[in-house]
This record gives sequence, structure tokens and C-alpha cells, in this order.
Amino acid sequence: MAEPVTIAVDAMGGDFGPDVVLAGAARALAADPDLHLVVVGPSAVVEPFAAGHDRARAQAASEVIEMGEHPAAAVRAKKDSSIVVGCRLVKEGAADGFFSAGSTGACLAAATLVVGRVKGVKRPALGQVLPAYARPCLLIDVGANADCKPEYLVQFAQMGIVYMEAIMGVENPRVGLLNIGAEDTKGDEFAQKAHGLLAASVPQFSGNCEGGNLMAGDFDVVVCDGFTGNVCLKTIEGTAKTLFKYVKDALMSSLPSKLGALLVKGDLARLKGKLSPEAYGGTPLLGVKGAVIVGHGSSSETAVANGIAVAATTVRANVAGVIADTVARTAKTTGAAQAREGEAAASDAR
Amino acid sequence: MAEPVTIAVDAMGGDFGPDVVLAGAARALAADPDLHLVVVGPSAVVEPFAAGHDRARAQAASEVIEMGEHPAAAVRAKKDSSIVVGCRLVKEGAADGFFSAGSTGACLAAATLVVGRVKGVKRPALGQVLPAYARPCLLIDVGANADCKPEYLVQFAQMGIVYMEAIMGVENPRVGLLNIGAEDTKGDEFAQKAHGLLAASVPQFSGNCEGGNLMAGDFDVVVCDGFTGNVCLKTIEGTAKTLFKYVKDALMSSLPSKLGALLVKGDLARLKGKLSPEAYGGTPLLGVKGAVIVGHGSSSETAVANGIAVAATTVRANVAGVIADTVARTAKTTGAAQAREGEAAASDAR
Repeated sequence: MAEPVTIAVDAMGGDFGPDVVLAGAARALAADPDLHLVVVGPSAVVEPFAAGHDRARAQAASEVIEMGEHPAAAVRAKKDSSIVVGCRLVKEGAADGFFSAGSTGACLAAATLVVGRVKGVKRPALGQVLPAYARPCLLIDVGANADCKPEYLVQFAQMGIVYMEAIMGVENPRVGLLNIGAEDTKGDEFAQKAHGLLAASVPQFSGNCEGGNLMAGDFDVVVCDGFTGNVCLKTIEGTAKTLFKYVKDALMSSLPSKLGALLVKGDLARLKGKLSPEAYGGTPLLGVKGAVIVGHGSSSETAVANGIAVAATTVRANVAGVIADTVARTAKTTGAAQAREGEAAASDAR
Repeated sequence: MAEPVTIAVDAMGGDFGPDVVLAGAARALAADPDLHLVVVGPSAVVEPFAAGHDRARAQAASEVIEMGEHPAAAVRAKKDSSIVVGCRLVKEGAADGFFSAGSTGACLAAATLVVGRVKGVKRPALGQVLPAYARPCLLIDVGANADCKPEYLVQFAQMGIVYMEAIMGVENPRVGLLNIGAEDTKGDEFAQKAHGLLAASVPQFSGNCEGGNLMAGDFDVVVCDGFTGNVCLKTIEGTAKTLFKYVKDALMSSLPSKLGALLVKGDLARLKGKLSPEAYGGTPLLGVKGAVIVGHGSSSETAVANGIAVAATTVRANVAGVIADTVARTAKTTGAAQAREGEAAASDAR
């Protein structure tokens, strides 16, 4: 028997409406007998679901934050939105985690403002598990912090390591810094500073990761500022989309290919599914209390079920707690090292 | 009859050695009766080629800059390297342009130090034509300037427009700013400033381009700093490589697919060729005098021939001259606008 866990679910998130989200929620409940859900949304939507499912209860929320709204402004204005109410449930201990396939920016703002940061974490960050060749790779930050300081990347690395160990079962994750050359001295000013800090304080750091290594399976965690990470993530998704279009065109371009296409289409469709962003059950927002997982806007029923399951695993593995310990330990080590340096300097001066 | 043009060719550049480069040079000569070449490299390599080809002459260069060397240091130390000698030919007017498939960094350093910048250009930049869906897209800068100021991006846009019009035949190129959201106010500090400058001074500017739009064919020129551009370009190449590996695996994963693979492999191989970086004949270094084109390290004979042809077209279209005019015109307009603002401010103050 697994530890009982309660996840709040934003019934109103996602491009396909509450029916798809609730179908995913039902599937998550069926797969995990120790999972409890609080479905958040307008009463007319969430109450019938709660009535029909044993381990679910309804939490009314009259407002919805739309995808186009300014995240922080919407979170402040719409106190009774499903995203804000879901986060408040976590804050108040009525739920252990929160899943939404709604606006990433709004989830980020609500998680930071309402749920709150893990003690010692400077900036929560969004991680995205990429379907790199043969093994997954977590890219972090993919958009929570457009403007970063180099020292944030040390914590992104630490949080990424905890997530990949606890949730993806990766042993001794290899950490890379997204950069424009393999050599240690490469990069812009920001990357050069980040490289020095990572080398000094993250034992799992194994050097620079160029754009070309990202999908090759050479690293388990790759850290970068949220601007570069977001451009990179969307470039990967866009490149994959364009390539599949080109492949489709190629398979229609001659008679032999048209015949061959009939034979290969099953395996190609399976490949597309394997590479889709929903395969890994959403994007963890690391560095906030509890467990907050944001699903892709186009999340299907399966993606929602996976995302809720990841939220439950994140709670059970105590990812937030392990992050707090790691961050505190590093701060202590750095503090002790600084103190020793201070003593040495003082004794030199005598 | 086309205008006679002389291109210097680095015989020592490229991963496959001088035989492949020279075979490509021979092909370029055969395709263009008004093309003249100066092949640069050790006498034993370049003299037999010049003896065997009517419109080719040899230029001895005893040194070679290797791929791993520090670009600027190597350019300063190896004055008799094929890259430095090739650039000197352009500087002295013995050649109109230069093509090399050697170290991009060294070509960049030699072009800037030896050939020199176009008057008014703040930072030369590397452009890369991407095989975006249905139409090519120039990403600029892909690595010449890791640290950029927002105002550089205005010139990157202007240079990119000239190249896409003159070389790729694109009418009224649509210019995008690589950014992390479609709305005008999105992005980090750098992107927000660049957005304002582009909107004010580049009429062809049509807004932000997210990573997902890059390969979709939504823009003809996309500008960014050289760090983001390099990460992005290599991410696209790496994603394509990984996807083709996944497709290959999928086509081997069942008996029907294995049979189908025999029928589709011809068209898939053609697609791979169409998407390869060499399809567009190398990376132009825009903003330096003459025409400097850098080929991919793994350039084949065809890629070298294409690269030399692009260098010739760049000379004939007077890309450097048009860039000089555009930059001067903008500086004048901006200057006039600033003067007007100054007068207005002065009259306000009265």
C-alpha cells in the first residue's frame, strides 16, 4: 500500500475543457487506490464528478484564468479562480499537491504567491523532461525566470537532480550547463560565471552541454536561464512538428512510399506518441512547497492522468523536503567554507 | 554572361580533407564559366589543382588552423595559414570573396581582423539559413557575438533582410525577434529593449518569433543574440538527428515496418538531404567587406560547390555594399530623428 496522498486538480485547465480533465482524473483514481482528489471548478462541473467517485471531493471556484491573461495580474484579480483556489488548498494543507493544464504563467504566479517557496530557494523553476535518445533529460528552467543570475543555476541543478533521482529513477544524474561550446571557457559572460559556480558546488556537474547534445542523451539534467530554456524547448517541439510534416510529405511523394506508408504508419504513430510532451506527465514547478505540476495546454485524458500521478509521486518522494535539505546543506557548506577562508585570511593578516 | 568574380578557397578547411574541397571547387568552376578561383593551401596541394584548371590559380599557405584552436590566438599566430592568407587576398583585392569549411571561429576572427568590417556595422554576424517548412528562414546571429547589446539586433535584421532578398530571392522578408512569447511586452530585459528598437527602425519587423515558429515558416529573418542563436541552431540540428534515429528505430521495430521501410527509404533519404545544413551552401558572415562564407565542417563536395557559388552570388549582388548603404541610411534617419528630438526638447525647455 502506498502512502495516501491528496491532489487538487484544476478542472478548468486545458484546451479541451473539463470533460477531458475529469476523465483523466477518473483514470488517475482508478490506477492508484491510495490517491484522493479535490476537483476544483464551478460547482456544476465538479460536484457531479465528486458524487460519482469515492475518493474525490469537490471544491467550488467560480472564476477561470484564461490562457491569454497576464499571469500575475490575473492571479491577484481572480481570487476565486480554479488555479488560485487549488493553490490555496495546498497552502492550507487540504491538499498535498496541485495539478493544472491551464496557463503555465498563472500556475507559476499562484504557486509562488499562494503556496510559497521552499525555504532557501531563491527562484522556483520549471523543469521539462525531454524525450532525449534512449534516456530522458530534464531541461530547467524552461520559462519561470526570463532574467536569471548565474547563482540561480546552481539551485536549478540541485532541484533537477532531486527530481530526476526521485521521480525518474535516474542514478547519479549527469548535470550539464547549456552553452555554446564544449570547452570550459566557452560562452557568454553569464555562462562563464555559471560554469565556475556549478563546478565549485555541484559534484554531479559534468560540463557544458551544447544545443546538439540536448536530445542526444548525453546529460540527465541541463540547466540554463529561463529565456534560453524556453526558446530551446519550443524549438525542439517546433522542429519535431516540422520534421513529422516533412516525413508525411515524403511518404506521399511517390507510389512506392505511399504503399510503404501503409505499412509503417502504425509504428510512426507510436513514435509520435512516445515523443509527445505529455508522455512524462507535465512540467514540475520545482522549489515551491508541496508539489505543483503543470500540464501542457493540449493535455489529453492520458496526459492529465499521468500529470496527477506525477504530482502524487512528487509528494510521496518528498521532493520539496529533499530540495529544502539540499539547499540548506549547500548554504551551510558554502557558509563554512567562507568562514574558514575568513579565518585563514585573518591568520594571514596577523 | 555573368560578372566575372574571383573567390579564394581554403583548400585545407573541412573534416574530409583537401580532396573533397578541391573536388567541390572543380564542380563550382564547371557550373559557372565566369567564376575564377584562388585555391589556398600548401603548394603540394594547390599547385596541381591550379595546373589542371583553366580559371584557377594557386596561392601557397604553409600553415593550417585546426578546429580546436583558440580562434583569435590562432589567427594572430598563424599568419601563413590558409584562412588568414585567404582573407588577406580579399583585403588586397586579389579576390572578391572567401570560402572556407574550416573553423568558424577562426574565419570570423580573420574576416574581422584582416578583411575588416563594412563601414557603420557595429558587429558582423553569422547567419544560418534554416530549412523551415515550405520556405527558408535566416537565423542571425548564430554565434559570432555571444554577448550582444539590443541595438546590434537592428543591424542583424538589416543585414539579414539584404541577404534574403539578394541571395534567396525573398520579397519583403518578414522579420521576427526570437523571444519567449508572442505578445509585444514578453521576454527578458534584453528582448524587450530589442523589440522597441526593431519596431522603431525596421519596417519589415513583424513581431516576436517563439522557438516553435522558427521551423514553421512564419518568418524569413529571425534575429537574436549569438548565444541564443547558437544554442537554437545546434538544438535544431540535434533534434533532427535524434528524430531520424527514432524514425529508423521505429521502421525496424516490426515486420510490416521493415517491409514498408524498403519502400520509403528512397524518399526519406532525399528528405534528409533536403534538410542537411549544406543544402544552402554555408553560413554567410554578414557585415564584413567582400563576401565571406563559412561551410559546415562536414561539408561534402556538393556543399563546397554550393558554398563557393553562394560566395560568388554574394559578390555579384553587392551584399556588402547594400548593407553599407542601408546602415548609413538608418544612421542618418536616426541621427535626424535624434536631432529633431533634441530641438523639440530644447524648444520645450525655453
